[in-house]
Amino acid sequence: MTDLKNNLRTLDGWQIIEKSFDPEMIVTTGSNFMIGNGYLGYRGTFAEWKKEHYVACTVTDTWDTAPGSTWRELCTVPNGLFAQLWVNGEMLSAFSGEAQDYHRELSLRYGLNRRSMVWQGDHGKRVRYSVEKFASYDQYRLVPMRLRIQALDDVDLVLICGIDGDIWSLNGDHFVSYETQQFDDVLMIENRTHEFDIQVNVAVALAVSEKYPLKSEINQGERWILRANHFKLNAGDEMTVEQMMVVAHSNDVDQPRQSAINEVSQARQHGFDHLYKKHQTHWDAVWADSDIEIKGDIEAQTLARFNLYQATIATPTHAKLPVGARGLSCQVYQGAAFWDQETFNLPMFLYTRPDVARGLVEYRYDTLPGARQKAKSLGYYGAFYAWTSGKTGEELFPDHFFTDVLTGRRIRNHFNAWQIHISPDVVYALWLYFEATGDWRSMLDYGVEIAFEVAQFLVSRVHFKMDKGRYEFIRLLGPDEYHENVDNNAYTNYLAQFALEKAIYLYARMTVEAPARLKAVLDKIGADQTVINDWMDIATHIYLPQPDPDTLLIEQFDGFFNLEKITPGELRKRLINPEEYWGWPNGIAVETQVLKQADLLQLFVLLDDLFSTQVMQANYDYYEPLTEHGSSLSPSVHAIVAAWADYPEKAYDYFMEGATIDLYNASKKVMSGGSFLGGIHTAAAGGVWLMIVKGFAGFKIVKNVVHFRPALPENWAELTFNLVVHGNPLSVRITHDEMVLSAQDTNTAALDIMIRDTAYQLEPGNSLKVKIFDYLRLSQRIRSIVKALINEDDFWVE
Amino acid sequence: MTDLKNNLRTLDGWQIIEKSFDPEMIVTTGSNFMIGNGYLGYRGTFAEWKKEHYVACTVTDTWDTAPGSTWRELCTVPNGLFAQLWVNGEMLSAFSGEAQDYHRELSLRYGLNRRSMVWQGDHGKRVRYSVEKFASYDQYRLVPMRLRIQALDDVDLVLICGIDGDIWSLNGDHFVSYETQQFDDVLMIENRTHEFDIQVNVAVALAVSEKYPLKSEINQGERWILRANHFKLNAGDEMTVEQMMVVAHSNDVDQPRQSAINEVSQARQHGFDHLYKKHQTHWDAVWADSDIEIKGDIEAQTLARFNLYQATIATPTHAKLPVGARGLSCQVYQGAAFWDQETFNLPMFLYTRPDVARGLVEYRYDTLPGARQKAKSLGYYGAFYAWTSGKTGEELFPDHFFTDVLTGRRIRNHFNAWQIHISPDVVYALWLYFEATGDWRSMLDYGVEIAFEVAQFLVSRVHFKMDKGRYEFIRLLGPDEYHENVDNNAYTNYLAQFALEKAIYLYARMTVEAPARLKAVLDKIGADQTVINDWMDIATHIYLPQPDPDTLLIEQFDGFFNLEKITPGELRKRLINPEEYWGWPNGIAVETQVLKQADLLQLFVLLDDLFSTQVMQANYDYYEPLTEHGSSLSPSVHAIVAAWADYPEKAYDYFMEGATIDLYNASKKVMSGGSFLGGIHTAAAGGVWLMIVKGFAGFKIVKNVVHFRPALPENWAELTFNLVVHGNPLSVRITHDEMVLSAQDTNTAALDIMIRDTAYQLEPGNSLKVKIFDYLRLSQRIRSIVKALINEDDFWVE
Repeated sequence: MTDLKNNLRTLDGWQIIEKSFDPEMIVTTGSNFMIGNGYLGYRGTFAEWKKEHYVACTVTDTWDTAPGSTWRELCTVPNGLFAQLWVNGEMLSAFSGEAQDYHRELSLRYGLNRRSMVWQGDHGKRVRYSVEKFASYDQYRLVPMRLRIQALDDVDLVLICGIDGDIWSLNGDHFVSYETQQFDDVLMIENRTHEFDIQVNVAVALAVSEKYPLKSEINQGERWILRANHFKLNAGDEMTVEQMMVVAHSNDVDQPRQSAINEVSQARQHGFDHLYKKHQTHWDAVWADSDIEIKGDIEAQTLARFNLYQATIATPTHAKLPVGARGLSCQVYQGAAFWDQETFNLPMFLYTRPDVARGLVEYRYDTLPGARQKAKSLGYYGAFYAWTSGKTGEELFPDHFFTDVLTGRRIRNHFNAWQIHISPDVVYALWLYFEATGDWRSMLDYGVEIAFEVAQFLVSRVHFKMDKGRYEFIRLLGPDEYHENVDNNAYTNYLAQFALEKAIYLYARMTVEAPARLKAVLDKIGADQTVINDWMDIATHIYLPQPDPDTLLIEQFDGFFNLEKITPGELRKRLINPEEYWGWPNGIAVETQVLKQADLLQLFVLLDDLFSTQVMQANYDYYEPLTEHGSSLSPSVHAIVAAWADYPEKAYDYFMEGATIDLYNASKKVMSGGSFLGGIHTAAAGGVWLMIVKGFAGFKIVKNVVHFRPALPENWAELTFNLVVHGNPLSVRITHDEMVLSAQDTNTAALDIMIRDTAYQLEPGNSLKVKIFDYLRLSQRIRSIVKALINEDDFWVE
Repeated sequence: MTDLKNNLRTLDGWQIIEKSFDPEMIVTTGSNFMIGNGYLGYRGTFAEWKKEHYVACTVTDTWDTAPGSTWRELCTVPNGLFAQLWVNGEMLSAFSGEAQDYHRELSLRYGLNRRSMVWQGDHGKRVRYSVEKFASYDQYRLVPMRLRIQALDDVDLVLICGIDGDIWSLNGDHFVSYETQQFDDVLMIENRTHEFDIQVNVAVALAVSEKYPLKSEINQGERWILRANHFKLNAGDEMTVEQMMVVAHSNDVDQPRQSAINEVSQARQHGFDHLYKKHQTHWDAVWADSDIEIKGDIEAQTLARFNLYQATIATPTHAKLPVGARGLSCQVYQGAAFWDQETFNLPMFLYTRPDVARGLVEYRYDTLPGARQKAKSLGYYGAFYAWTSGKTGEELFPDHFFTDVLTGRRIRNHFNAWQIHISPDVVYALWLYFEATGDWRSMLDYGVEIAFEVAQFLVSRVHFKMDKGRYEFIRLLGPDEYHENVDNNAYTNYLAQFALEKAIYLYARMTVEAPARLKAVLDKIGADQTVINDWMDIATHIYLPQPDPDTLLIEQFDGFFNLEKITPGELRKRLINPEEYWGWPNGIAVETQVLKQADLLQLFVLLDDLFSTQVMQANYDYYEPLTEHGSSLSPSVHAIVAAWADYPEKAYDYFMEGATIDLYNASKKVMSGGSFLGGIHTAAAGGVWLMIVKGFAGFKIVKNVVHFRPALPENWAELTFNLVVHGNPLSVRITHDEMVLSAQDTNTAALDIMIRDTAYQLEPGNSLKVKIFDYLRLSQRIRSIVKALINEDDFWVE
């Protein structure tokens, strides 16, 4: 057993274990110990809890608006895993009595949440109690739970369990009707949502050890339906209760009521153990593809798997739906996708489980109508993707997000209207997919239409400056959201050019390979053949801020270097209230060079073949001290660029920062700018894969060549992971001395490999073992020798 | 004697008289009763007062920054007219004792401020006391004052008088040294300013009736030098003291100390009466040119002259210097020019005293280097005139003007950077000057350079939108300052096109008439012959928002009509603090259609030949109810457009509102957004001339034809004023029935006249009497007849 920080332990990196309960941490632990399967997320809360403890089951594809609210967000549904155990009239609770052998564990390997303890009430009677649950990957609507109760004294027990419909919902109650129902032994609440009349059915069925048959009364209120089960146990007696919960809704299935009844009844028949076994086979397959093994650093190992786990359960695979910025851990950010999906979440799937990645790309195709509508509504054309994208791709982000905590006035945030890089970001992901898979068919089927519509949007958004003979993007919001309303944000301009170049490539290739399809796409988007002239003209003459010849610095946006230069720490002292939003329109950072998050560095990570190590170093040195890391997206970018810029200690520090945001509650900002911002930071979770594979292993694909530039953290003995490139699996093992790449027999083609500056070919079934020269270690050794020499006799400075 | 409002009276419209003293009103009355001559302004305060009563003598061309301040503003100089009368040990004061026959008067005809009363101390002793002063138009550095003291009881008097250097200064003390000096009988304080080391000398000399020779002690402190004069008067005795003040400074004269001593000594020798006579001849000449006579409405008559007086004394004529937005009434707005100078102050001079107008145009030529520097510093070229323009034309407006009264944080106002219409506004004034005078020589000498440099600035500022095939101006602040950061503000785009067209005209004409000069100007501004291509391309393809075919409405800027539509009154209820600034970045008006001031209507007034009466009506109807009139520039624009749109009652109401802003303290906003904003609203004063001559007389010059469209207010019997067009004086008399135009014998050319839709010619020495058809009266009569008919027997609606 290894102690981690934040009151946590692990056994072998495949689980997190909490050994004592901290009531101050229930927002955080509720998220960290959560279970889910991409369809629903069930927070890692306790069975006896209610909404005040942030119990929530958040279900995808249920976007709706509560009456009087402007927030279209996912619904949290009635809690079918509610269970209170009363021991001799006293409720077993984390907040009362006395707990021994307290143990809360999340299995990262199988997504099993378990809590156990010996609980003693004020009356002195003791029970051993454990609760296990998992969100089934075999039947995604199903969450089985099992309670084990062992009497350590003679006790009278009442188990009150069923469905609690009085639920935590961030922005109002979405349900305009609550109907409690009973079908034989199945309890159910049927809701209907306010805006779209979505029917949501939560059904529950119980199974109890035969020895203790159910003797229960059913009680129901407007928003709850519960059984009270009475048992008498003698010391040593043990019983088991299985409580199966099914959530079905009308966006997912035609007959949600019947579906829920059927599924929950069958689940009760199959029983917990059987269901769990089937569930496990799915996770085994997932980890076979996507596990990352780190030897020598059990903490990093656990963090890696924790984040891979969270990124996985946040991602819908049963349908083409977005990855929420907080996954399904709560309703924050409306359960919707941001650019995070493309830049932080997609890569790990793309190179390990490409089908999942294709689903995400197809999702952006399905949401083209929403993107077109958004462009039109703002006076543009083409596809301007939603900043906050739900099922349809219409813009979900409200005009007013933050509140000025000093005045109580709402703040007009322009994330939705000015953060135009979202559209090129989608093309970036599309291209990444194409490069990784070579899937020309999908490009023709839908990629081209995305790329062309984004190019058209850029045409309608760009401005030409006659005096400078160049195109510019005006009134932007780059990744650094503290500076709205800027011009020529380098990140945005470069990504826009990237997107235009890809549209030009696709157009040109199609004129040869698929002229009919080209014509069909152009017709569909209402463009003619001449559009490529516009694209080429803009791509050629767009302003791309270049590194200064002397300093190598690239200005984040026009005039950035003229702003007040101050560190985030100094700036923080100007806060009147710690909750203040730092950015637009009148936040403390606006007139300074303090960044919310990586902005220019983000560009280095995405367009990973454009800039030299020297440029990355210079800009890292300049921008890093100015960065407040007010976004969970920031540390992983810093870790990657630091790794590439040969700053190994910084890379590792930022790796730890990025990987612990949730588990160690490193991002304590549950409230910011008047908004509740708890929950799992899904992008940060995806970022952990990026830090390890892109950062420390230096993986990238450039013109079909697979590059590595290993820079293992000092304390990692060995790093192992798998990739899939153009459908060909590739195993990677890296130590400080060598790198081993293995291709499977079934691979269909040789892979072109480049390790630092040396090229290799890897044939199917072959392995490639390369001695790697650990540049960093060597340079550190040289530095230490130099230092010793200097200290000894000032030889070097004479 | 006619009672006006606000505790004021007038005898014959040539003076304002206050019959009782209101201590609550000292900020306002100090401004209203002020005297001045364009070199200095001396507030209409009492001789015994000090800085806490807002005593100030503000002197032009003394721009300087107090230590620690960012405000470069005019200096207020030591008060050389300080005089306290002690009667039997008790100080005569407006705040103590008892005053009978209180009388404060400002002669509008001659700029004489007089205050008199019989004052009785608590001891019961009485003196009759009067103080007169005027700011000499004959010697602009001189302000003579005369005290008359008549004992009504036997009294011991001590008159303490001299220079009080402990002065009111808005943004810190500008003087780093105070040196009190005495040269024979002349008292002096010599100061030096902090930033530019300007030497300021204030000298004072006394002359007392021979019967009561001076028996005085001189006392001096660090910042004051005073005489204490002892007199014994018996009941009925009367004495006179003349106190001459001279202000000289090193920006105005080489030897300010000697200058001040000489001038003040001579002034004492000449004596008050003699000096006043010479001063009067100047005012006689001014009024002969520029008086407006209104019969039948003594209140309007007084208001007209009050505002003409204030506009006149605010305007420097001794040198080419700007007209301050608060004139010389205090330091607010830094004593600097805004666009108000061109749009509100210049016209009255242009058509009555063209030489004064030429001085203002030349001032903009002299400040071209500052305008070039400003353009350059913001990444443009050409001439971007300062939003706040002092002597050099460099930008004086600070980045932070208002303070957020809710948080205490400073607000970044972009008046300086985004209100680009200032540059076309200067060209507008230049063109107005050219049209009114035909002065081609001045155009060649300096007008062309202004016009070309403004055109070049517009080239460097404009953006081309490829998708729309048009030029746009992005990120603007129009006249409506509540909406920063807007695109295609109609006012700005139209004015920009106007400016480009004039540059094109000048260029084209010079190719024929002055090719060498053209080449010289192009060389000087670093442009080549091809610039005209750019100007023509932009002038042809710039986006000019057009009236909607159905509604006739022109959108103030892109997206304005999508903002929340709410009245200013309703919006006001959202204020948390009455001092809040309503505009950018987070003010209550920003997301609404509430305007600070006339914006589109301002366009109608300036480009007075572009839009039909119907378009003006439609837009007046739409925008007027949305206008908060948060600027003193707003009412006069509304009055003019209302007059043109045949809304006579509204025109008169806005005339009264615009004309009474200062005199009736109609703009009560002494504090706004955390800034002190007292003082005379110089633009509103100039706006009174515009309302009468442009609005009610409908005067404009279009292609050398002098237009009139009379629409006299119902209660005005007759309106008389003079104009000068192309050097030819023209007298105008308008009644409800006829209009009489008279040209002088000495006129050099016939004038083309258009009265409504009929053309006339007016030869030198001739008069033109035209029966005018009073359309408004007639249509009102018809309407009332129709109404009567309808009421009688429903004849019309059957």
